[in-house]
Amino acid sequence: MSQHPLIAIDIGGTWTRAAAITGDRLGAVHRAATRSDDRDAFLADLAGLVDAVRREESRPLGVAVSVTGPVDPATGRLYSPPNTGDGLDDLALGDWLAAHTGLPVRVDRDTNCALLGEVRAGAARDCRNVVFATFSTGVGGAVLLDGRLLRGRDGVAGEVGHTVVAGDGPLCGCGRRGCLEAVASGPAIALAGEQPNGQRVSVMAAAGDPVAQRALDRARRSVIAACVDWVNVFNPELVVLGGGVVQAHPDWLADAAGAVAREGLQPARRDCPVVPAVLGDEVALIGAAALFEDAL
Amino acid sequence: MSQHPLIAIDIGGTWTRAAAITGDRLGAVHRAATRSDDRDAFLADLAGLVDAVRREESRPLGVAVSVTGPVDPATGRLYSPPNTGDGLDDLALGDWLAAHTGLPVRVDRDTNCALLGEVRAGAARDCRNVVFATFSTGVGGAVLLDGRLLRGRDGVAGEVGHTVVAGDGPLCGCGRRGCLEAVASGPAIALAGEQPNGQRVSVMAAAGDPVAQRALDRARRSVIAACVDWVNVFNPELVVLGGGVVQAHPDWLADAAGAVAREGLQPARRDCPVVPAVLGDEVALIGAAALFEDAL
Repeated sequence: MSQHPLIAIDIGGTWTRAAAITGDRLGAVHRAATRSDDRDAFLADLAGLVDAVRREESRPLGVAVSVTGPVDPATGRLYSPPNTGDGLDDLALGDWLAAHTGLPVRVDRDTNCALLGEVRAGAARDCRNVVFATFSTGVGGAVLLDGRLLRGRDGVAGEVGHTVVAGDGPLCGCGRRGCLEAVASGPAIALAGEQPNGQRVSVMAAAGDPVAQRALDRARRSVIAACVDWVNVFNPELVVLGGGVVQAHPDWLADAAGAVAREGLQPARRDCPVVPAVLGDEVALIGAAALFEDAL
Repeated sequence: MSQHPLIAIDIGGTWTRAAAITGDRLGAVHRAATRSDDRDAFLADLAGLVDAVRREESRPLGVAVSVTGPVDPATGRLYSPPNTGDGLDDLALGDWLAAHTGLPVRVDRDTNCALLGEVRAGAARDCRNVVFATFSTGVGGAVLLDGRLLRGRDGVAGEVGHTVVAGDGPLCGCGRRGCLEAVASGPAIALAGEQPNGQRVSVMAAAGDPVAQRALDRARRSVIAACVDWVNVFNPELVVLGGGVVQAHPDWLADAAGAVAREGLQPARRDCPVVPAVLGDEVALIGAAALFEDAL
């Protein structure tokens, strides 16, 4: 594990956070609202956060950034994040931070960073073949195979939330019908369960409401089937699931692990647990720092 | 491209073929029936083929093997191929060939070799990010990302045929319901179309038979949806489809390319063609030789 001090930044849909980090030891976390509809305001806030961290860590060796939404990890240029305002569209974030700090910069999307964080200090410690998926407002993912993140041509491989699991299912935000995200995200469960949010669906299902129960059962079955699909396609040693939806339903993980062991292809299904993500808010900061693992 | 002479071997469900190969120039192809229910007979035939090739190429630098069914590419040990007899189960093919020839040996499954063959000399020449799938008796696949084959823990990653595309669909040979293979393989189309084989379903569909038309339409839609899924998950620069089913329906490729461009995630959907495999029987031999690309 790298023991070089870095500036770690987590740009989320609501908050942007920054801290000094050495290995997996985090300094004080500074934060500002992510004013993503106004590029100048966003960059001014970012500069403020970086400068605040530098007052605590005067000799950082680099800047590691986790950002919500798709990004080209080779350049740190953002594509068009769906969960943030237009101010971030096509922003050359890597170049901007390099110019502002004079330091090497690595940028990757939040799910890639979260996976690296779990590998470095969480549920997937020391693993080299991991499928990670998070079920919350959306369904995102990342895949580590043979010790390397799946990147693909544009650096956006590993988005496991947008595969069709129910051909006649509900419309997804991406425009297709029946994506995993359209069935198993919090808002998808809320919509199908006819409740204001996923938590409320759980409450109503427990109280016997059949609409809520059907919505949860469909989400549960799609999560389980997706885990078996991933084991067949990626042949990981571990599947890690995070996000509020699976946190609210820990039994789904045991069900998924059972389905993998019973229904997966041989030899991939053998000895491949499905476990919860264990790191909290700090995972993106720790994981971003791991982007420098090979470089420094 | 490597210009070292190699012995290339293609172990199929019906025939085992062998030839000398230098670069992508093949010598005479020798063949024997794959007597996979009798290990001793199979190995005796294999020895005969190797010796026949050696009489033509006296200084081979290695043995490159494509084999139907799952195999550990690190060791050349076969798992339990579903399409061959019990005689090959758990066979240490790499070790046996190394002992028999005194040469370095590489073994990989047929779809990985076919993908490498298409990259070396076919539809995916010089590509570094490719999803390959073949639709025939089964649905198999392989994925090249960032210039490397997806391997996973046991070396069997890339099996894209066993993901569920129709949750209430027909039973698959793997035991699950509604896998891509259970909907879009030749036998699956024949079963759904109530005809003895897929070709006959095409004939009947063209003649207006509604059962045949429904079977083909379901297969077509699942192939198209799978291509979009793969673009979202793997972010390739190219999707290559092979096998008798797509050869019989070349319009499906154009439909899939259109769906990718319209429905895929940004930026992955941009400029990602869906094209037919172009190499014939020789693809496995040429592709197997490419296994030595980095090694020699």
